[in-house]
Amino acid sequence: MTRNALADTVWGPLRWDGVRLHLLDQRLLPASERWVVCDDADAVAEAIATMVVRGAPAIGVAAAYGAVLACDSAPVARDAALARLRAARPTAVNLAWALDRMAAACAAGRDAALAEATAIHGEDLQANQAMAEQGAAWLAAGSRVLTHCNTGSLATAGIGTALGVIRAAWSSGRLASVHATETRPWLQGARLTAWELLRDGIPVTLITDGTAATLMQRRGIDWVIVGADRVAANGDVANKVGTYGLAVQARYHGARIMVVAPVSTLDPALPDGAAITIEERGADEVLQFAGAQVAAAGADAWNPVFDVTPASLVDVLVTERGVVEHPDAASIARLLQS
Amino acid sequence: MTRNALADTVWGPLRWDGVRLHLLDQRLLPASERWVVCDDADAVAEAIATMVVRGAPAIGVAAAYGAVLACDSAPVARDAALARLRAARPTAVNLAWALDRMAAACAAGRDAALAEATAIHGEDLQANQAMAEQGAAWLAAGSRVLTHCNTGSLATAGIGTALGVIRAAWSSGRLASVHATETRPWLQGARLTAWELLRDGIPVTLITDGTAATLMQRRGIDWVIVGADRVAANGDVANKVGTYGLAVQARYHGARIMVVAPVSTLDPALPDGAAITIEERGADEVLQFAGAQVAAAGADAWNPVFDVTPASLVDVLVTERGVVEHPDAASIARLLQS
Repeated sequence: MTRNALADTVWGPLRWDGVRLHLLDQRLLPASERWVVCDDADAVAEAIATMVVRGAPAIGVAAAYGAVLACDSAPVARDAALARLRAARPTAVNLAWALDRMAAACAAGRDAALAEATAIHGEDLQANQAMAEQGAAWLAAGSRVLTHCNTGSLATAGIGTALGVIRAAWSSGRLASVHATETRPWLQGARLTAWELLRDGIPVTLITDGTAATLMQRRGIDWVIVGADRVAANGDVANKVGTYGLAVQARYHGARIMVVAPVSTLDPALPDGAAITIEERGADEVLQFAGAQVAAAGADAWNPVFDVTPASLVDVLVTERGVVEHPDAASIARLLQS
Repeated sequence: MTRNALADTVWGPLRWDGVRLHLLDQRLLPASERWVVCDDADAVAEAIATMVVRGAPAIGVAAAYGAVLACDSAPVARDAALARLRAARPTAVNLAWALDRMAAACAAGRDAALAEATAIHGEDLQANQAMAEQGAAWLAAGSRVLTHCNTGSLATAGIGTALGVIRAAWSSGRLASVHATETRPWLQGARLTAWELLRDGIPVTLITDGTAATLMQRRGIDWVIVGADRVAANGDVANKVGTYGLAVQARYHGARIMVVAPVSTLDPALPDGAAITIEERGADEVLQFAGAQVAAAGADAWNPVFDVTPASLVDVLVTERGVVEHPDAASIARLLQS
């Protein structure tokens, strides 16, 4: 049974009530649904840093409303609050992009700031729809897809980036199967992506992250469809750790890689992926599972939470402005000028 | 600080007290150390099936003692018990190999059976030592290694297969770093491998399974060193799921793959990996953690617990009889005839 997944955006990761920003605490999903209420910009920064809200586009929208909450402060305090928001997480460029837009609006007063935040919010929603339709058009009927992390309504203001493409492809009957990695250490795939897809009536089969190559070998995958946290000028893609490994495995098996990201995720100021700051979070996220210590006491862990996939492994980059096949510096520059 | 890890085998996954088999419950490690006491062969079969004991060589040794426990039964009951032991898990050939050896011994009485089980136990211990020394000799000083799952004293009767090589290489000062995957869904890397290495004073850094390619890209890995549950006549290797993905990633990055397995793991009766039965366990192992649901309710999971790495991706196969570089049907046949 297919539903019109494109219309199913009544819920999402954030809600602005006119005065405060409400953020769905994604760390607790799907076991419980709790909203964190932010009265000031620092509360939003804290929510971003601690992953109450995650997903590059959603972080950008949340930061925009966070900036609105700082507008009534004196300029020095306001700018300091915006700087703390900007520093909340380093890898997703949408955060800096949204705050660049908010800075001028904030200086013009709260009404202008709220209008700008609402515009950022609405543009992301529209970009999701445009990407979903354009990306889905690349999938032949009967496609077997694999996705990673969560790139859906919880990660954006709309139906999602990679998950938006999967929703649209499902709605138009193009998908034979959807697999999702569980995505350690935060389990966004098991907790969030599965939850979203099942709400839309789209059957999903989870795998551990280590099973992806085996899935390609034994069941076959046509497309690996992922989002992005930052795309450099040459097309190198920073995304959730594990994306690069999936890209290597997909290339080996003849599966194609589709990266779905709004233009706000492109960062033409960075020449290539080597210039992207990769956030490393605490070892405890690996040493623990669902809050309980699982690793041997005294063990260390390396926990880079993003990785860089070189443009040479990306088959298709889908944005709301159009699709770039085999992205490189020239084709991305043309897209940004369009 | 290095220690003589080769001598550190006073603990292990099983203990025969003369009458009963004691198995260390590896599902509970490292949080607690509990021993399961098996009075009959069916208790051993149950312990193998439920992963109280795991690791191909350890399963073989446990099954051998399990067969001893069936020896005093009438022939029909004894043979039925041996058949249930054999069916406990399908992928590790060591189980069938040990029971083939035990069948004739059991028919000759309990003393003969115990002598055979003790021989199997002792041979595995010796094989571990021989493999460790031969494998370590392939590692240049300053090697950076990555291992997967647990292949140490908990998986064998001695210092381990892949982990034995790592112990010997550490003792002889060849290692710059040891990384281990956490190895979902059972987390043998985080729980067992880290525990073993830290007991030996060998520093280990854990990564999530999805971080392996990123590790190779950013920190560099010279050798991926793994065990095996079954090696086909042509050199295809069945091992813990994730091994195949690591092999694909290693090849892409110019890292080499070493498979460490006793001759009892070679199965010349199977022409290639396609003929190896791959055990699929319940979806709950992926969907739950420590008995608690973590995935979205209603999600399905695919949980093949082994995968097959083609011989073409294996650089070196280390056995107690010698090392085969670029294994294939001819070189493995020569090894088995040696």
